[in-house]
Amino acid sequence: MESIGAVLATHPQRPPDPSLIETCAAACYECGGRCIACSDACLGEAHVADLVCCIRTCLDCGDVCLATARVVSRLTKPSAMVVEAQLMACAEACLICAAECENNAAMHDHCRICAEICRTCEQACRALLHGASLA
Amino acid sequence: MESIGAVLATHPQRPPDPSLIETCAAACYECGGRCIACSDACLGEAHVADLVCCIRTCLDCGDVCLATARVVSRLTKPSAMVVEAQLMACAEACLICAAECENNAAMHDHCRICAEICRTCEQACRALLHGASLA
Amino acid sequence: MESIGAVLATHPQRPPDPSLIETCAAACYECGGRCIACSDACLGEAHVADLVCCIRTCLDCGDVCLATARVVSRLTKPSAMVVEAQLMACAEACLICAAECENNAAMHDHCRICAEICRTCEQACRALLHGASLA
Amino acid sequence: MESIGAVLATHPQRPPDPSLIETCAAACYECGGRCIACSDACLGEAHVADLVCCIRTCLDCGDVCLATARVVSRLTKPSAMVVEAQLMACAEACLICAAECENNAAMHDHCRICAEICRTCEQACRALLHGASLA
Repeated sequence: MESIGAVLATHPQRPPDPSLIETCAAACYECGGRCIACSDACLGEAHVADLVCCIRTCLDCGDVCLATARVVSRLTKPSAMVVEAQLMACAEACLICAAECENNAAMHDHCRICAEICRTCEQACRALLHGASLA
Repeated sequence: MESIGAVLATHPQRPPDPSLIETCAAACYECGGRCIACSDACLGEAHVADLVCCIRTCLDCGDVCLATARVVSRLTKPSAMVVEAQLMACAEACLICAAECENNAAMHDHCRICAEICRTCEQACRALLHGASLA
Repeated sequence: MESIGAVLATHPQRPPDPSLIETCAAACYECGGRCIACSDACLGEAHVADLVCCIRTCLDCGDVCLATARVVSRLTKPSAMVVEAQLMACAEACLICAAECENNAAMHDHCRICAEICRTCEQACRALLHGASLA
Repeated sequence: MESIGAVLATHPQRPPDPSLIETCAAACYECGGRCIACSDACLGEAHVADLVCCIRTCLDCGDVCLATARVVSRLTKPSAMVVEAQLMACAEACLICAAECENNAAMHDHCRICAEICRTCEQACRALLHGASLA
């Protein structure tokens, strides 16, 4: 199946091995999407007052992931520092959101499923941060 | 594989059949991601001046798709009119972007791959618009 | 003071009178920002369960406004239909959010202040929709 | 005039002095908006091929600023680390975009006006990063 990776694979300035970028961009979109959906599912729970911190954390993580997805999809930069700093922010947002959602995972399946992608996305951001020449 | 659909499937206010919503949300994230990546690939082509309209169209479509993905993922609304109007805007953005990218598909694989998801996303928006009780 | 209008005023393809576009773009950014801040203020209220509909409506309106701001800031289009459809979605989101926030305005100043910009932004979207040649 | 600051000033969990947050959020929305408008103005210039790096840098800065604006507007966090990391990413994006736009400022007024807000926004992010207790 073709995906965002297929677009990056045909980019005229693609790096020799774009797989870390593709994996990270796909994880950021998937994580952003699940976080936003999880925040709405939390808003629908009977004990919403107990989930306020989780809602805010999911909304932050959703916003940071979707911005990071856009930034890593642009393949040339005058400096690697913006994408590196954004990847660090995204890894941090995913770490915090995973911990918050795991607190609620036993009670709410949407939090369990959201936490899983947060862990995956954090790893994908760190892999791109440490394994790639970004500029 | 779990996805944004898995989060929506565990939402406390999910509709009886959330499949049209899941398909639309997933298509909007995928289309938004490919449009943003395609705009950057176009910026990298030698004849960028010939692709200015395609770049702008991809950027518009990316922004509209990613906002639509967020809106359709929130499952209850005081009125169906916002999500209906946003789905109409998204179907229109996808239609225009598909046509623009198809103009360039023979020369640029990223435009061909972008046009494919635009057609899919347009259909997913129209299917949700016509097939679902949205509020 | 210079603003987004100053950028549009120096755009090489600016229309003869860009003032409706400038007013609309500025209103969309301001409204998006207030809606997102209002959703967080609602999440902080003691009776958050009573504000769930307002929170969701503010989040939808914030996402729609910020996408609309981006789309109207791009000054040439192969077709006026995307920007027109997005302006209709934005006017609808602002109308719904204004009504929802006005329900809570007597109790919460953040809802009163949010409702004010929603009314302004709805008018700015409709003014651009009816008064301008958009393509 | 009321603004996003007025919403934050009525937030039930506002800090004793929210002025650094208000200034930063307003600067991020203004900078994001000007960067997106500047990228489109650059796309409209006759010598667009010379402005490709500026366009990409403006698009990155716009995405990072608008995500940062959302994150700083949410006033309570389980940890200050996400907002701190996001502010660092935003300051870096503004620094790079200011430098890139300043290269073109003598030729293009939109780049000059964009660079000004990038400098202002970078300072507002650093002021919030160093001056505030964020969690």
